[in-house]
Amino acid sequence: MAHWSEYLNREHDRFLEEYFEFVRIPSVSALPEYAADVRRAGEWVVERLKAAGVEHVELMETGGHPVVYGDWLHAGDDKPTIMIYGHFDVQPADPLDLWETPPFEPTVRDGKVYARGASDDKGGMVTPIFATEAMLQTTGALPVNVKYCFEGQEEIGSPQLQPFFEQHKEKFACDIVLSSDGLMHDENTPMVLLGLKGLTGLQINVTGPSSDLHSGLHGGVMQNPIEALTKIIASMRHEDGAIAVEGFFDDVVGATAAQREKIAEIPFDEAEYAKSVGITEFFGEPGFNTRERNWLRPTLELNGIWGGFQGDGTKTVLPSQAHAKITCRLVANQDPTKIHSLLVAHIEKYTPPGVTVTIEKTAGTGYPYLMAADHPGNKIAADVMHELFGKPPVEVFVGGSIPIVAFFKNSLNSDTVNFGWSVGDENLHAPNEFFRLENMQKGMRGYCMILEGMTEYPQD
Amino acid sequence: MAHWSEYLNREHDRFLEEYFEFVRIPSVSALPEYAADVRRAGEWVVERLKAAGVEHVELMETGGHPVVYGDWLHAGDDKPTIMIYGHFDVQPADPLDLWETPPFEPTVRDGKVYARGASDDKGGMVTPIFATEAMLQTTGALPVNVKYCFEGQEEIGSPQLQPFFEQHKEKFACDIVLSSDGLMHDENTPMVLLGLKGLTGLQINVTGPSSDLHSGLHGGVMQNPIEALTKIIASMRHEDGAIAVEGFFDDVVGATAAQREKIAEIPFDEAEYAKSVGITEFFGEPGFNTRERNWLRPTLELNGIWGGFQGDGTKTVLPSQAHAKITCRLVANQDPTKIHSLLVAHIEKYTPPGVTVTIEKTAGTGYPYLMAADHPGNKIAADVMHELFGKPPVEVFVGGSIPIVAFFKNSLNSDTVNFGWSVGDENLHAPNEFFRLENMQKGMRGYCMILEGMTEYPQD
Repeated sequence: MAHWSEYLNREHDRFLEEYFEFVRIPSVSALPEYAADVRRAGEWVVERLKAAGVEHVELMETGGHPVVYGDWLHAGDDKPTIMIYGHFDVQPADPLDLWETPPFEPTVRDGKVYARGASDDKGGMVTPIFATEAMLQTTGALPVNVKYCFEGQEEIGSPQLQPFFEQHKEKFACDIVLSSDGLMHDENTPMVLLGLKGLTGLQINVTGPSSDLHSGLHGGVMQNPIEALTKIIASMRHEDGAIAVEGFFDDVVGATAAQREKIAEIPFDEAEYAKSVGITEFFGEPGFNTRERNWLRPTLELNGIWGGFQGDGTKTVLPSQAHAKITCRLVANQDPTKIHSLLVAHIEKYTPPGVTVTIEKTAGTGYPYLMAADHPGNKIAADVMHELFGKPPVEVFVGGSIPIVAFFKNSLNSDTVNFGWSVGDENLHAPNEFFRLENMQKGMRGYCMILEGMTEYPQD
Repeated sequence: MAHWSEYLNREHDRFLEEYFEFVRIPSVSALPEYAADVRRAGEWVVERLKAAGVEHVELMETGGHPVVYGDWLHAGDDKPTIMIYGHFDVQPADPLDLWETPPFEPTVRDGKVYARGASDDKGGMVTPIFATEAMLQTTGALPVNVKYCFEGQEEIGSPQLQPFFEQHKEKFACDIVLSSDGLMHDENTPMVLLGLKGLTGLQINVTGPSSDLHSGLHGGVMQNPIEALTKIIASMRHEDGAIAVEGFFDDVVGATAAQREKIAEIPFDEAEYAKSVGITEFFGEPGFNTRERNWLRPTLELNGIWGGFQGDGTKTVLPSQAHAKITCRLVANQDPTKIHSLLVAHIEKYTPPGVTVTIEKTAGTGYPYLMAADHPGNKIAADVMHELFGKPPVEVFVGGSIPIVAFFKNSLNSDTVNFGWSVGDENLHAPNEFFRLENMQKGMRGYCMILEGMTEYPQD
């Protein structure tokens, strides 16, 4: 009987072709017109898990984009039950004109696969599936009991999944979760996470006159909704960079001296980072450095703004409406529901006279997540990554959010080991997203090794 | 030989059909993709003037959208030479989804023609053409010498026309201009203008990172270009409503006690106006009332803003760029070139750290225009309108701009009588623009009567 390693080598080209097939499905969860594609991606995952040898595979309804469940539970009661998590939805692909090749047609250039979702998270989530197949088709078994949980609403903050897991506690019960939606520190350096941010988001809609008006005939006499919106947004941050929403920082813990020291130990070339994102100057909350701001401190970012005329040239219009989208990344112990209320109160307080404002909650309620530095799940993953990449992973906090990790903690009482094969420079959420094929190969091997390592995971 | 009045009655249906044909041409001057349609509208005007009996008709190149010239100069040297002005370009039709019927398919409902340009200015500018035909086809002559000047770039501020008229002073020389691009005070009350505003406009482009970034992985550490843009815009007006751009008011004259008294004499139902535009509260420069703000004071209006994600739901992006369009309406003696420089200086001063800003001039250079209250051109038009509508016109200032009126003054040394058959409630520059057919009928008769009245206009 062949070893899983030989199997992965032998089936390499087929796996790649299957991964491309998966990436071609435009499973954009944020846009209603792609809802059927999100479901189709879920169905693809169902079939792929079955083909790998996973049992009890099903597409489960959530009230929104579906969840895929499957399991293989024949390792015995003395072995832990691991749950592998990932997501099959992707970010919108716009602005389309900035893509060098079509976003949903994977194209290989220089050892990299270019496509929306190639890295986040389709490339990440197929690696444990292919690893599972390699083990089951060679040894006929997995070293531990494994459940599979893949969702279709990560990119919109998993709005339906907190009640979903509350309802299905039993089915998803496990000792530890391995999230495939993680990152490497850089192309050659693995990473495990100590903290993830929470998330809350809203859209501000400002209405002035009931229809667009001629800016000459009606100018100067009424509040312009675009201007009103800019006044509201401008009020949300002090000139020095600190968020000005009253009460925003009240529940923030962390940014301890120990955490800041640990961060300082991780090599970081700030000039190189500035160059990679094309800025000449950093800006943010006073009293913290760049990585502390991103990793340890809550953020407020404008994601979009629009109103009035956007074409070439001039249209002398006084517009009826203006809109903006905001998301906040939260840290322990900020409560996303409370932060939403504080944002609403701030917006209402700073709405100038003469316009009406409505506020829509857009993102799901994501709680921040903290993991103990010496957690045994992180330790097992770290040992594997050390072997795989020739150096131990850096242990970091990140500025990103995976709300489901907090749901697993809250509903299943399971911690999540967050690691992955994607790199932050791979244009996640931007045009020309790509995934490095070499790290994908390592990732499949890594998952086999981690499942083997998990035989040592302490059970309750 | 029939009187022009009978001719207008007899040809009514044909004129209407021709007007519809004209309105169907989507001559949107602001959008490059419609440039050929603007030219086509000009060619339509050429053919229509020829058919009316006008001589020396030609489409003249300007370097941008063309100008149509024609004349009929056989009234004799003892008669004045009048020039009739109008424009055949229209505003963009977006947002399209708010139109009840397609913008370029004229539809009659309840005595009103609905279409983009139906009122501004295609409905206005066909009335003197039809009036000309009625006179020439019945009496074989016009009472005065008449030149015709129709342009295709009014809605973008006539950027090429100042040098154009400088170059063609001789050809367009005249004693007085009658502008068909005017308004009535309300559905039943005519109006002549004492002042028009100047115009200058610009687009602000703010760039942060070189591409859109993941708001989690990169949030909190750099200036968000949308936020930077809101800070810039918010800085342009004090909280009390006054424009905060340094030097903006330095050259403003007018808003004299006499002007303010004259304005106060004109009936105005502010509550009705608020209702008609769907606002509950007015807002503007302190120390002035609603009509003074619009008629006598310079304005700064945001016409559009955009950047980042505008779709449904959430996209957690930190965008690379944000943009806004601004136009200022100017009063005597503000210089649009100087005001542009003041705006640029203000924007540069208030640009926060960490982003780069570029500024594009979008609108043409429009000078404000003031006409003497006792001008003989206004007097002749006023007498005709009194007869036509049963009451004298109100004499007003307006918040709108017709840059070409200042070019006629500067290049040709000719004043312009500004009157028209459109009403401010006809959704000019907005969805569901319409024109009242009854006022169109009156307008054709009015032009015949004004040409007759102009025999009394004093020549130099």
